[in-house]
Amino acid sequence: MNSADILRKKRDGQRLSHAEIHAFVKGVVTGVWPDYQAAALLMAIYLRGMDGDETAELTRAMVISGTKLDLSELPGPKVDKHSTGGVGDKTSLVIAPLAAACGCFVPMMSGRGLGHTGGTLDKLESIPGFRVHLTPEEFMPILREIGFVMIGPTSHIAPADKVLYALRDVTATVESIPLITASIMSKKIAEGIDALVLDVKAGRGAFMKNRRDARLLAEALVANGKANGVRTEAIITAMDHPLGARIGNALEVEEAIETLKGNGPPDLEALSVDLTARLVKMGGLAKTLDEATVQVRQALTSGRGLEKLRQGIARQGGDPKVVDDPRRLPQAPKSALIPADRSGYVVGIDAYALGRATMVLGAGRTRVEDGIDPAVGVVLKAFPGQMIKAGQPLAEVRYRDDASWAKAQELFAQVWTLGEGPTTISMLVLDVLK
Amino acid sequence: MNSADILRKKRDGQRLSHAEIHAFVKGVVTGVWPDYQAAALLMAIYLRGMDGDETAELTRAMVISGTKLDLSELPGPKVDKHSTGGVGDKTSLVIAPLAAACGCFVPMMSGRGLGHTGGTLDKLESIPGFRVHLTPEEFMPILREIGFVMIGPTSHIAPADKVLYALRDVTATVESIPLITASIMSKKIAEGIDALVLDVKAGRGAFMKNRRDARLLAEALVANGKANGVRTEAIITAMDHPLGARIGNALEVEEAIETLKGNGPPDLEALSVDLTARLVKMGGLAKTLDEATVQVRQALTSGRGLEKLRQGIARQGGDPKVVDDPRRLPQAPKSALIPADRSGYVVGIDAYALGRATMVLGAGRTRVEDGIDPAVGVVLKAFPGQMIKAGQPLAEVRYRDDASWAKAQELFAQVWTLGEGPTTISMLVLDVLK
Repeated sequence: MNSADILRKKRDGQRLSHAEIHAFVKGVVTGVWPDYQAAALLMAIYLRGMDGDETAELTRAMVISGTKLDLSELPGPKVDKHSTGGVGDKTSLVIAPLAAACGCFVPMMSGRGLGHTGGTLDKLESIPGFRVHLTPEEFMPILREIGFVMIGPTSHIAPADKVLYALRDVTATVESIPLITASIMSKKIAEGIDALVLDVKAGRGAFMKNRRDARLLAEALVANGKANGVRTEAIITAMDHPLGARIGNALEVEEAIETLKGNGPPDLEALSVDLTARLVKMGGLAKTLDEATVQVRQALTSGRGLEKLRQGIARQGGDPKVVDDPRRLPQAPKSALIPADRSGYVVGIDAYALGRATMVLGAGRTRVEDGIDPAVGVVLKAFPGQMIKAGQPLAEVRYRDDASWAKAQELFAQVWTLGEGPTTISMLVLDVLK
Repeated sequence: MNSADILRKKRDGQRLSHAEIHAFVKGVVTGVWPDYQAAALLMAIYLRGMDGDETAELTRAMVISGTKLDLSELPGPKVDKHSTGGVGDKTSLVIAPLAAACGCFVPMMSGRGLGHTGGTLDKLESIPGFRVHLTPEEFMPILREIGFVMIGPTSHIAPADKVLYALRDVTATVESIPLITASIMSKKIAEGIDALVLDVKAGRGAFMKNRRDARLLAEALVANGKANGVRTEAIITAMDHPLGARIGNALEVEEAIETLKGNGPPDLEALSVDLTARLVKMGGLAKTLDEATVQVRQALTSGRGLEKLRQGIARQGGDPKVVDDPRRLPQAPKSALIPADRSGYVVGIDAYALGRATMVLGAGRTRVEDGIDPAVGVVLKAFPGQMIKAGQPLAEVRYRDDASWAKAQELFAQVWTLGEGPTTISMLVLDVLK
């Protein structure tokens, strides 16, 4: 199969055959396709698109570029959740133990944060001792016994995605729905799961800035899951304001623990319960979403979810006492309050600006190779819709050095919008796709 | 200037600034832009296009990637001709000496043949001893004294084109009007000429299969020449049938010599005179095209054109006696006649099939690195519109080995179409653009 012919076909807006898609993916992984041909095809795909069938086959080709986990020995539904990334989104840390407490098995592979959004791996690593890099021999017993495991990408899972993503990153071909879809779904399908719930974020703090684009992506993801034999649902959630009250790695772990204790912020708790209930229902452990929600709420209020998290942390080498004493998590040496410069109603908390500000503090990275500071971050003190007086704190900033705090202040100044009257708070869940 | 930002701009259909275009071309030549980013941008340009201003700037950037010849010392107009390539097109070998005989200076740089079309360099090299690779120190005295020189590309002339063309060739981005335009024009502009005439071929034997595409390319070329300060005209000529009666390197040199002796086929003579007259007029040596045509015809009938060719061959190391005795050119050891399998009128001689067939005989190459056989080729014996009887020869094939002749026969079988009645012969010159 001639690579130039494949390039010409997609360039001219034609559909690629299954064989052509496999030749491309295999060629990229083996190096038979040089970088420049792969880059040209990625740009052609970006501009000409791929239909659902092509995208499903691209996903399959990426899955079989590595190995697909065989979880058939596990006595229950194998499920997972994926979010397209937001600010303050620590639902994974709540959902995995809750789903496990309900009888699901969750082989969750996550990534690191980049830009203004955080990553689950970075959050987990703020727990002293916690190991995210485990071999299949190490994580399979944990998954079997605890019901969930939270690890980083392994070289066996969809290696083609790693090569293609690196190339997309430097050729301005990241923001393509078929390419995003195949990248997300290949890694999830390779986990060997039966059911998947997707949280597609829409808003200024999200990758997709508007609902229309978020819906197009959600549709592509759900169709792709189904075409690949995985029960898949997606919800579209608002990401204009941050999720919860804490942003920063150790701070988010603390908030997830509080949520599993029943003391979490209402938006975080509601979203975590909703996503988990969808997994429980799709996993066949409940007939309706209402029934599943009851089961998840019981796992939450009984403390069984919290117990699962404690066990999981211990089995992955982390200090399980952080669950009882969050001060065992890394603490930033300094803190400062950001006061309101006038009285008014909190109308907006710009998730994007807030994400950028915490990144500047050291909580996130601009380049993949950067390190992060697990302790720094922000604790919000005022929320959308709330009335606040001049001088009252909008947030408490936890930081390490004065230089980064000084730099972050400019960005923090853009975060809050105060208005004359109360505002309507938009719904968190904007849409559901099955 | 960030390469990813430039990629993103063109990907989104925006115009690139002059600085961005120069950053790209410079980046490609110095290697600061890796191949994969250049390939992605070429695909984005292919699919999103470039307007005339962008294309003119791309051309300029490619010109200044090398050196532009300074021909100001020459006491007359500096002119050149370029053809987009056809089958049997040996006009360059006629035009350069004819224009020189009229007082022009022609610093003609040509390329090799690829695929079904021949290249001027290959034809010249069939003349025993002829050297196409000359340094500026070697070719400048020849150009000054004879009035023309015919050489291959030098590393000083638009080196960016070489890098970009190699990349376009393997990324399915060759057939892009802005990229073709910049590639052709950068090399011609770097020759330091005042006037340029372009022969844009349209038809089954040409790169542009239809007149509409040929016209778009011709318009882009003429606009580009003007934007870069070179007087430029283009004619669109039919390339459904081959030009002249001989196809194959030494055979075409022989036909060019015959044409300069006044014994050439009418289509080849007419086209050569027309193109040369346009150069004489644009060069300021005649007020009107009619006046220029008279001068060119005088150069032809007086034998001054032939004399220029003889001198040029000698000065470039070739055997000048080939002008008097074409048998001094390489001769194929074997020949065969192709008879008509029925009686009828010659309705079509498929230039593409004929080009492919002579390539299989060894006259052309499929890959840049292939060698060619200068002696092999075809001499046509019947022409469009002509009535022929079954068994009469359509052509004489000159070949070297029986295997390639056997292979070529399949292709030869597709070349001729015989019809019941006489056919209308289409005009050779279809359009003129100034």
